[in-house]
Amino acid sequence: MSPARVDRTGPNLDRGYIVPVGGAEDKLADTNILKKFVEICGGKEARIAIIPTASVLAETGPKYERIFTGIGVTSATALPYAERADAERADWMATLEEATGIWITGGTQLRLSTILGGTQVARTIRRCNAAGVHVGGTSAGAAILSEHMIAFGKEGSTPRAGAASMAPGFGLTNRVVIDQHFRQRDRLGRLLSSLAYNPFAIGLGLDEDTAAFIAPTDTLTVVGSGAITLVDVSGLAHSSMAEASESEPICMIGVQLHILVDGATYDMRARVAKPPAVKPSESE
Amino acid sequence: MSPARVDRTGPNLDRGYIVPVGGAEDKLADTNILKKFVEICGGKEARIAIIPTASVLAETGPKYERIFTGIGVTSATALPYAERADAERADWMATLEEATGIWITGGTQLRLSTILGGTQVARTIRRCNAAGVHVGGTSAGAAILSEHMIAFGKEGSTPRAGAASMAPGFGLTNRVVIDQHFRQRDRLGRLLSSLAYNPFAIGLGLDEDTAAFIAPTDTLTVVGSGAITLVDVSGLAHSSMAEASESEPICMIGVQLHILVDGATYDMRARVAKPPAVKPSESE
Repeated sequence: MSPARVDRTGPNLDRGYIVPVGGAEDKLADTNILKKFVEICGGKEARIAIIPTASVLAETGPKYERIFTGIGVTSATALPYAERADAERADWMATLEEATGIWITGGTQLRLSTILGGTQVARTIRRCNAAGVHVGGTSAGAAILSEHMIAFGKEGSTPRAGAASMAPGFGLTNRVVIDQHFRQRDRLGRLLSSLAYNPFAIGLGLDEDTAAFIAPTDTLTVVGSGAITLVDVSGLAHSSMAEASESEPICMIGVQLHILVDGATYDMRARVAKPPAVKPSESE
Repeated sequence: MSPARVDRTGPNLDRGYIVPVGGAEDKLADTNILKKFVEICGGKEARIAIIPTASVLAETGPKYERIFTGIGVTSATALPYAERADAERADWMATLEEATGIWITGGTQLRLSTILGGTQVARTIRRCNAAGVHVGGTSAGAAILSEHMIAFGKEGSTPRAGAASMAPGFGLTNRVVIDQHFRQRDRLGRLLSSLAYNPFAIGLGLDEDTAAFIAPTDTLTVVGSGAITLVDVSGLAHSSMAEASESEPICMIGVQLHILVDGATYDMRARVAKPPAVKPSESE
């Protein structure tokens, strides 16, 4: 499920944004993250396709339809894929194909991969993103966006063998492994464990109500009330993951962390973090 | 770690072969698989770079040097990367860059991913394969070849939650998940479990002394004394992986199996299996 190639001959020269959110984004007051997602998708003209498959609650799709129309979007339509055969529905596929933004809700990320993995829906989401459509997701919907996702795992700040169970995601990007509800569920250990297997990806630990807006240039900007714990293992000198027994702590030498807050950016190609631009103080 | 793009402007129009072997390939008598690997790499003119990193035994590299020179190869050189800093060695990189074939030995696949993942060596192997260099590996060296690999798991023929632990591999292909010592270690259950997470890939269960020669066209040919159990989950109607508790058996409806032996082929794009060509009997 590698990223589909960007079509350099079409009207969109770049892929769309990829927007993982750490879960529990503000849906009532500021709706800061969702507003910003709508904005890049075309504002009032946006056509948002909502995929509530991660959730088993029937109201999840309609709830996001109301949230998006509340923000001012004219067209927000839930496509409640619930079993693999649903991926063949032509009417839902037409809605998906016409979307300017695709929003994937929270729930269980393995529902997304088991129900939609290997289907036309997963291929279409990849292809649309490569053609310029923006794709965002919260919680499970964030985890599924990358090629390698954490399917489930254990809490705690120390990496341990077996603390992170990996599975293939939708594969919109292979530069990151995403974890969500990060501070709230004490997940540094499981994110480090997932990176220790093969230290090629960048770890994104997303707090709740916090999003990474990953631009087509692979530079991300933080939006939200929490932080992103960015884990760079490119300088890792050693990891003991290959030798560790189940639940044993993993030795990792040379991990670099950045704690990024609203407005901070990170260039994932050059691996350079920048703080938010300083706002002129009111007394100036 | 997605496959590097094939350079359509260079002298090689296609990527090289990808050759996973199920372990315990014949090294003394026929050496059928290794001979065939040498043949595609240029025969006597082949330059084989051997990566024994999966193994902790110092003799693994020299042993394969002897096997390959015994087959008639002039240049077979072990590059015993043992820690991450070794990936910076310029002399070894030169040997790797000049190879017509790269051979990855058995051992522990997590040693390959933890020591070489994210380094220049992993990138070079991907880039060389995309540029026409053939890459083969046995046992752990087979598992590492794909984007999603089985890091470790449990025996048994029934898929169970937690029976397969996944990790990112070297990513030469994203069409397959590979398992090795397949019949010998009763691994159908763990291969099915790995596919149940996200049913997009093809499962290759490789018996010992059995290889899949995956051509640049993504058609594989079986070579060896055992069988390849090919698992196609593209028609999967249902999997219960998202709901199953640890160790619980997984419900999977609609799995297609092919048991392929020496000479049989499988077109991984069209998903079509063909038996070996019928040889004229001696009495005719």
